[in-house]
Amino acid sequence: MKLLRYGTAGQERPALLDANHQIRDLSAIVTDIDGPMLGSGAIDRLRAIDPSTLPVVSGDVRIGPCVGRPGKFLCIGLNYHDHARETGAAIPEEPVLFAKATSALSGPNDPVIRPRGAQKLDWEVELAFVVGAECRYVDEAQAAAAIAGYFVCHDVSERAFQLERGGTWDKGKGCDSFGPIGPWLVTADEAHDILDRRMWLEVNGRRYQDGSTADMIFRPAFLLSYISQFMSLQPGDIVTTGTPAGVGLGQKPPVYLQPGDSVRLGIDGLGVQQQSVVEEG
Amino acid sequence: MKLLRYGTAGQERPALLDANHQIRDLSAIVTDIDGPMLGSGAIDRLRAIDPSTLPVVSGDVRIGPCVGRPGKFLCIGLNYHDHARETGAAIPEEPVLFAKATSALSGPNDPVIRPRGAQKLDWEVELAFVVGAECRYVDEAQAAAAIAGYFVCHDVSERAFQLERGGTWDKGKGCDSFGPIGPWLVTADEAHDILDRRMWLEVNGRRYQDGSTADMIFRPAFLLSYISQFMSLQPGDIVTTGTPAGVGLGQKPPVYLQPGDSVRLGIDGLGVQQQSVVEEG
Repeated sequence: MKLLRYGTAGQERPALLDANHQIRDLSAIVTDIDGPMLGSGAIDRLRAIDPSTLPVVSGDVRIGPCVGRPGKFLCIGLNYHDHARETGAAIPEEPVLFAKATSALSGPNDPVIRPRGAQKLDWEVELAFVVGAECRYVDEAQAAAAIAGYFVCHDVSERAFQLERGGTWDKGKGCDSFGPIGPWLVTADEAHDILDRRMWLEVNGRRYQDGSTADMIFRPAFLLSYISQFMSLQPGDIVTTGTPAGVGLGQKPPVYLQPGDSVRLGIDGLGVQQQSVVEEG
Repeated sequence: MKLLRYGTAGQERPALLDANHQIRDLSAIVTDIDGPMLGSGAIDRLRAIDPSTLPVVSGDVRIGPCVGRPGKFLCIGLNYHDHARETGAAIPEEPVLFAKATSALSGPNDPVIRPRGAQKLDWEVELAFVVGAECRYVDEAQAAAAIAGYFVCHDVSERAFQLERGGTWDKGKGCDSFGPIGPWLVTADEAHDILDRRMWLEVNGRRYQDGSTADMIFRPAFLLSYISQFMSLQPGDIVTTGTPAGVGLGQKPPVYLQPGDSVRLGIDGLGVQQQSVVEEG
């Protein structure tokens, strides 16, 4: 099942994508695709519904972030062998954890806003998952069962803010619009081969990232189990799992996003995002 | 005005503390002390109410975190001259920003839970503030006007998780129970001298931290303006502004919290927190 949210930012409505790629409204059945919904077992209830009985959403609607109001938006760094190599970093002995501000979340096709003073705006295609059950000190099997679904995340980054302004990475990871997720959440039952999916990212039609989730160092169930040793996770929490090689910072010389650039990215079976880069007004 | 939240964790009710230090229930007037309430101008409406007309909350009630469901729980590191010195760090040229997981929030007198595997549990008394209006690229005067109120925050930290486990500080800052805030939020109109308040922390009756907000390097309005250059802030977002000298890591040899320890901390006019340290079950 593919779940999504559509409509005006901040007022999105829940929907599913049917087998004919038509958006079907779910407002009569669930209030949102968010933590309370994911934690309530509603996905199982939705499976019992014949999508053809749901109202079709017609017209050119905005797609919102596929999960609403997560409590946490956690990220794993340096989690692909080829990306660790391109940054010159050693392969991490344990996952590198950081976080994005939840206010960074945006829809998959919303503009990426270059913040004032930014010079090193960079891209990262990533596989993300959403938590469907409370997790505290869970083992890997429990963690696997607690993953509600998977989706594409663009971990937009400003490298000077991230690496040259003191402190942790937060300044360059949590800017508004730096967290497009979606277009849709693929429920875990349809993602058994999620660790063998091609993932790619293009800027102005040139392919810079062309990797596979198979190259991941620490895998989703391990990551969720690992994080749960440090903090509890609640339904709706998002974890994005790192990027393969080919980021702007890894080019020789580095290449950064400029206003007017167009970014396309995707993961097989999880859909495609397309963003225009715009200057902060 | 002093605002607080009381009752069972996750189901707290809003209240105020009257001039006689009695808790008065505000449930009939506002649904919570949280982002929507703070952003709605409700504090001005509350000021017009005679507290003696509000129901008294009697008995020994639990005090919850004084702000509910913040979108962000941001922190400033190394923001006191004396603490920067004790860590051996240089005085930062600009604020050091990091974040705690919002799931770390707890009440001012709730137990501090030592996570499994933790060995270096440490304390930090801090002055925190809550945002009362959307902030994006605000200047310092706008930021000052957007601070809704101040309170005590205990920035509980696990130094091995923070500094020895790879990546950013998140593993050692966001553990459950690592963010006691309160007991109450003092509205900004009653905090004109907030930059000249004594702040202290004791472990088992021994005073380890004894500082003053006057020693702060970057001050609240500057910090809020600064952060807003990197990300927008929403009503209800919390920023905690760093700790003075005297943390456990700074002792020679270092001293860390053990199960059974009792921690008391406070800031003049903002109340006192008291926590027992317990082992994760």
